[in-house]
Amino acid sequence: MNFMEKAKPIGVFDSGIGGLTVVRQIASTLPNESIVYFGDTARVPYGSKSNDTVIEYALQDAHFLIEKNVKAIVVACNTVSAIALNVLKEKFTVPIIGMITPGSQLALKHSKTKRIGVIGTRATISNHAYLNELKKNDTEVEVFEQACPLFVPLAEEGWTDHEATKLIAEEYLRELRGLNIDTLVLGCTHYPILSKIIQQVIGDKVKLIDSGVASAEIVRQEINRIGLETNSHALGYQDFYVSDIPTTFKKVAELFLGQSILNVKKIDLEELQKK
Amino acid sequence: MNFMEKAKPIGVFDSGIGGLTVVRQIASTLPNESIVYFGDTARVPYGSKSNDTVIEYALQDAHFLIEKNVKAIVVACNTVSAIALNVLKEKFTVPIIGMITPGSQLALKHSKTKRIGVIGTRATISNHAYLNELKKNDTEVEVFEQACPLFVPLAEEGWTDHEATKLIAEEYLRELRGLNIDTLVLGCTHYPILSKIIQQVIGDKVKLIDSGVASAEIVRQEINRIGLETNSHALGYQDFYVSDIPTTFKKVAELFLGQSILNVKKIDLEELQKK
Repeated sequence: MNFMEKAKPIGVFDSGIGGLTVVRQIASTLPNESIVYFGDTARVPYGSKSNDTVIEYALQDAHFLIEKNVKAIVVACNTVSAIALNVLKEKFTVPIIGMITPGSQLALKHSKTKRIGVIGTRATISNHAYLNELKKNDTEVEVFEQACPLFVPLAEEGWTDHEATKLIAEEYLRELRGLNIDTLVLGCTHYPILSKIIQQVIGDKVKLIDSGVASAEIVRQEINRIGLETNSHALGYQDFYVSDIPTTFKKVAELFLGQSILNVKKIDLEELQKK
Repeated sequence: MNFMEKAKPIGVFDSGIGGLTVVRQIASTLPNESIVYFGDTARVPYGSKSNDTVIEYALQDAHFLIEKNVKAIVVACNTVSAIALNVLKEKFTVPIIGMITPGSQLALKHSKTKRIGVIGTRATISNHAYLNELKKNDTEVEVFEQACPLFVPLAEEGWTDHEATKLIAEEYLRELRGLNIDTLVLGCTHYPILSKIIQQVIGDKVKLIDSGVASAEIVRQEINRIGLETNSHALGYQDFYVSDIPTTFKKVAELFLGQSILNVKKIDLEELQKK
């Protein structure tokens, strides 16, 4: 493969800003790779929309990244991964990496007791995306699911260390604490922001699985497989596109990304809808 | 005015379900009037969208109600009231009643010290809609604003009596408690759901203003002014339309409405967008 092909960026998209925790993991695993991120902040959240709508939006989001000449696409959103991944894989020829398969595989690798907890948004939990994927790979695994709907707004407010967040985590995780799990999948890209409190409440013996970490590793394998790993030894660039810039965007984005966010461009939703 | 005109329903719309607290107040003030409600649950929240988008959506929502043959329209959403009310008033001939003017007038009526607090979403607070309206009506009033972004998800989760909600309210209201206000405007249609905890935290001496109560009174005055108050002595009917039905819709809607919700119909967003 020639230099130009290898220098192409990796595309990452999400319904909003949660996917920035995944960008953080990809940048940490593959620091020389460049990344183009698209967050559909004008149409967030996808979780409460119909499957048809989620698929339509996901196709538009992926199209946008394809036009940015990406060599792979990471679907950094559990809802979209659960609903639209197969459609995206049929439609595009670049590798498409979701959250659910990598996260599930990493959880199975870590779990010794085969008792795995999964937390996520109400949408992700109610369609049992992780449960089905885990059981597909290991019929003996026992999976316990819990929706934690307030974790997203708490993460977006940056209340990572607040007593109220701890109380809410205690309420959500009460049942899981009694079920002897040894592994807990953070089935929403917002949750790594709250991992300190989640770990505190669920206990030190439970291994937390960040699907972003897992998918970053799969991205590495996939771009190696197709021979498109970068030759560069410099840090990759990062470009960020969003469909709207909420007032608190910069502050919240930096919390999720773990560093200052530069190069944020707002794109026109009408243009996106034509894709 | 003839019987048919007077029997027309009152239209109420909101970006989601928060407006149901306003329906509750209108039904309590005007039990014989019928109500048609539209909640744009597929496109909620409006608060993080651009003004142009909010205006476009508000026009579509109002059009939908006009086609249901309503005699007045209540904009049961503080964000839309702040941004789109004038455009709606120019476009339609029926009375259009928002939240901000009625809520501000009721607050000024109650306040003796002329020190008034306003809480709302980040969008409502950052565009100072209540502050400007209050000062327009009374130049001597002092207004203190506080955004309380976590109150909406807490209300939608029904955590009306939870210790975590109290902690969060204490954090949000800490400054306002030291400012000697005698009146506090609940500048978001979700907040009446949390009024018990808000009252507890802000203290018994502060009068809470529910803009829904205020706007219900203005609706009564407006339909009397145009001579369209119903002649019926029976309870009015209530029809509910939404653009999407989230999994928890029924439970949450009933919490907001204060009674069982019947006649919920999902409408097609594509149809709405043609209006």
